[in-house]
Amino acid sequence: MSGRGSAQRLERNAAGRQVPVRVNGEPAIPFAGVGKHKPSGRRAAPPLATAADHPADGNKLVPTLKAALKKVGLKNGMTVTTHHHFRNGDLVANRLFDAAAELGVKNLRWAPSASFPCHAPIIRHLDAGVVHHIEGSMNGPLGDYTSEGKMRGMAVLRSHGGRYQAIQDGELHVDVAVIAAPTADPFGNANGLHGPSACGGLGFAVADAEYADRVVVVTDNLVPFPCVPWQINGNRVDAVVEMEKIGDPSQIVSGTTQITRSPDRLLIAELTAKFIAASGILKNGFSFQAGAGGTALAFAIYLKEMMKERGIRARFIRGGSTKYLVEMLEEGLTDYILDGQTFDLAGVRSMGENPRHVNTTPFTSYNYHGKGMFATMVDAVVLGATEVDVAFNANVVTHSDGRLLHGIGGWQNCLFSGCTILAVPSFRDRIPVVVDEVTTLCGPSELIDVIVTERGIAINPRRKDLRRAVRGSGLPVRPIEEIREEVDRLVGGSPAKARTGRKVVAAIKWVDGTVIDCVRQVL
Amino acid sequence: MSGRGSAQRLERNAAGRQVPVRVNGEPAIPFAGVGKHKPSGRRAAPPLATAADHPADGNKLVPTLKAALKKVGLKNGMTVTTHHHFRNGDLVANRLFDAAAELGVKNLRWAPSASFPCHAPIIRHLDAGVVHHIEGSMNGPLGDYTSEGKMRGMAVLRSHGGRYQAIQDGELHVDVAVIAAPTADPFGNANGLHGPSACGGLGFAVADAEYADRVVVVTDNLVPFPCVPWQINGNRVDAVVEMEKIGDPSQIVSGTTQITRSPDRLLIAELTAKFIAASGILKNGFSFQAGAGGTALAFAIYLKEMMKERGIRARFIRGGSTKYLVEMLEEGLTDYILDGQTFDLAGVRSMGENPRHVNTTPFTSYNYHGKGMFATMVDAVVLGATEVDVAFNANVVTHSDGRLLHGIGGWQNCLFSGCTILAVPSFRDRIPVVVDEVTTLCGPSELIDVIVTERGIAINPRRKDLRRAVRGSGLPVRPIEEIREEVDRLVGGSPAKARTGRKVVAAIKWVDGTVIDCVRQVL
Repeated sequence: MSGRGSAQRLERNAAGRQVPVRVNGEPAIPFAGVGKHKPSGRRAAPPLATAADHPADGNKLVPTLKAALKKVGLKNGMTVTTHHHFRNGDLVANRLFDAAAELGVKNLRWAPSASFPCHAPIIRHLDAGVVHHIEGSMNGPLGDYTSEGKMRGMAVLRSHGGRYQAIQDGELHVDVAVIAAPTADPFGNANGLHGPSACGGLGFAVADAEYADRVVVVTDNLVPFPCVPWQINGNRVDAVVEMEKIGDPSQIVSGTTQITRSPDRLLIAELTAKFIAASGILKNGFSFQAGAGGTALAFAIYLKEMMKERGIRARFIRGGSTKYLVEMLEEGLTDYILDGQTFDLAGVRSMGENPRHVNTTPFTSYNYHGKGMFATMVDAVVLGATEVDVAFNANVVTHSDGRLLHGIGGWQNCLFSGCTILAVPSFRDRIPVVVDEVTTLCGPSELIDVIVTERGIAINPRRKDLRRAVRGSGLPVRPIEEIREEVDRLVGGSPAKARTGRKVVAAIKWVDGTVIDCVRQVL
Repeated sequence: MSGRGSAQRLERNAAGRQVPVRVNGEPAIPFAGVGKHKPSGRRAAPPLATAADHPADGNKLVPTLKAALKKVGLKNGMTVTTHHHFRNGDLVANRLFDAAAELGVKNLRWAPSASFPCHAPIIRHLDAGVVHHIEGSMNGPLGDYTSEGKMRGMAVLRSHGGRYQAIQDGELHVDVAVIAAPTADPFGNANGLHGPSACGGLGFAVADAEYADRVVVVTDNLVPFPCVPWQINGNRVDAVVEMEKIGDPSQIVSGTTQITRSPDRLLIAELTAKFIAASGILKNGFSFQAGAGGTALAFAIYLKEMMKERGIRARFIRGGSTKYLVEMLEEGLTDYILDGQTFDLAGVRSMGENPRHVNTTPFTSYNYHGKGMFATMVDAVVLGATEVDVAFNANVVTHSDGRLLHGIGGWQNCLFSGCTILAVPSFRDRIPVVVDEVTTLCGPSELIDVIVTERGIAINPRRKDLRRAVRGSGLPVRPIEEIREEVDRLVGGSPAKARTGRKVVAAIKWVDGTVIDCVRQVL
């Protein structure tokens, strides 16, 4: 791996963005347009194993994480993965790199499904060269560290589906996956449903379990074989480590999830629900997805009331689940929840108890390099963004100051729904959200159908069908340029361009593995 | 593929059997001893796909099986697979080869997980060269056809786990998998739990869904997306075909499964249960597996009574499930059923309803080329055999006349349990079962611990621990040679050696892909 100091050759991609053609020494393909890049070649192929090399009694317990890393042969320059099922309550990744440092291992590539503020202690391992660079979403301090150009290699950000795609395609070869599991047996079967660190599903680790050369499961709730259900398959696991505490429950799930109280956000939520009704999407057998942010929750509640009033039942709701979605399932307003992650205790309980609350994974839902994916079958999705522009492009990773502070999550993958709605305030803290051109391109305009703000609803000109459908509905549909101008007047003009240098600190991947944009070092 | 006419070079393998070193033109590795052959290389890697090439609405319906075969590009010489979830009630495989014949395709390799008498109509496609040869268990007429040397290529028989291993390892490359599914949605998600042809699990097809280049799902119970649970993942499926009727329910599952009424078989069943008790295996948290044959069922009932008397609860019972196992689960005599296939309606219902009745697959249970497998964690397994010999070798595929009439099933895989018991009559129809040397070697003596007959129990000399454990139990433990001599006296001497020619008609694979024995043409 390289990338430090060497001049970075950039190329203009199909979205008009200048992107690096090599990332950490490996060739990278510029974004070619939605659906344009067709993969060739075959899926990643991990080495064959044999039961003859594994204990007949199924006991793969190893006393410590350090011993497990030695056992699986962790070496300089390898790629190590962890997963964000515990969100900001993860206690395993820090321990992992402490152990790697004790073993004297250097130049690791860390490819978490996401990192959170709780992982700030890993900065010292980045400084010391234990970790060379991070490929994965970075929420908070590690993103900031990257923005400032301090990381040795170039960060690579991928969506949840893009991470699966990259591992499956062999683009991101995983040497050692470390899977923190709320319940596991000594064979390595594991799930997230039970135990003190229960988090629901373990879907973000399935790519790693399937394709990593070596897999370590870490648990604080060891049960006798068989751990049922096995969301992670022990037949793929090399070693199991028991640890006293792998997560901080208060940071993994919340007892209650907070609905927004901001009148502006409530208005956005209500307008979004009304748009879905007016456009004809809201009908028996429909499906939708919304996140767990305050606006998305409020939207779900507005929509629920409309569904009850009109006697409408959904075929499925995609989670991130919360108690609000669980209530809809239990009240018969949907046949199924297809859930990628549970955001609160009600979600965890429901997934464990209710066969109609179905655990999904980035493979089933978001893998663009499969024979289809669930994401395209969702009728409407409601998402956020840090910026949207008048061409209907959107940004979720940087702020207008250029700082990389958020991960992509499933956001890019969700754009493939039948109707993608960004429900965003038109400005935040006097900084416009609706702008002339997004700082970083994460989602191309052809996939973003509607932008709902507190100042009105903008419909992408490509979606003439949606424009026609809501005509006469009384909804405040406006040209996006008009909203932008109004915001500029209110906050006193467009935001200053981000002050960035030439150095590329992060590549932003599209769902097919191509580079859609990059992030420069902030000055 | 070749194999017709060419002189077959044989080599003596580690079990002393002469086996072919090429099978249908491909090099084959002679059996090297249990646990001796270590695989190198990597898992099979199917071609990458992209959602861009698949319908966004998830609808992969194709009007006919023939149209689906055209769509997935079926060509001369390809490998096509089907599965035996419907046992003797399968209606799909015959239709498949009729369609292939109509398309003018020739020289197919058919690799079913097993074939049954219902597949006799495929003989005309073998005669006509549509099918070149069969790799898979053959129960009845197709085995007989093979025995008589009529098949163009050499048959290859594998265990359920060996079939998974061969597909996973790329030894058996599947071009087109056709999966008959009792319930499916237009995306290809499928399960065996519901619908007129309900059969329980679809585990025999998971290797194919995972590793085949192209996958076709055929169903007679199409439901709207999502089909939940998805035992087969739509993200791996290329086309879905709706057909009026895919199985004959009366042949798929039985309302009741028949316990033996033969006094000899009942005695064998009782002795087997008593042996498990006397040996100390029967204790809280233990596990066992028995088949669905009359003797195995009677054994399970004897064991159940002992468990109730002694207040013993199993951790898990491995199915093939029947109503007897389901009763044990529902009465709290086991924590779990880990089930590879449901043999009756009670099993199908239970797997669909009870989260403790867990669907397993040849991958989880039997794949020798994984990081362990469930089979080694089973404390005791009770199996049958067509022949056992005085060295504790056993045969399950041929009769003493040399005819290939049975598949291996999960039999070889189960031999890895902590205590493998063959519960067999000492003779059948005046033909000895306990013989000097088995006609065909399917299970090597080091894995066969105990042979229970109506004339006594023989313990493998390697298992001194078991001998010690049952000392003083009053059980009729005898040397196997003594049983053999007694049987010979009764039936008038050893059976005549099978009259076979030089031509090898079938290779018998061991669980690691090596060749443990072969079957010769009968004269």
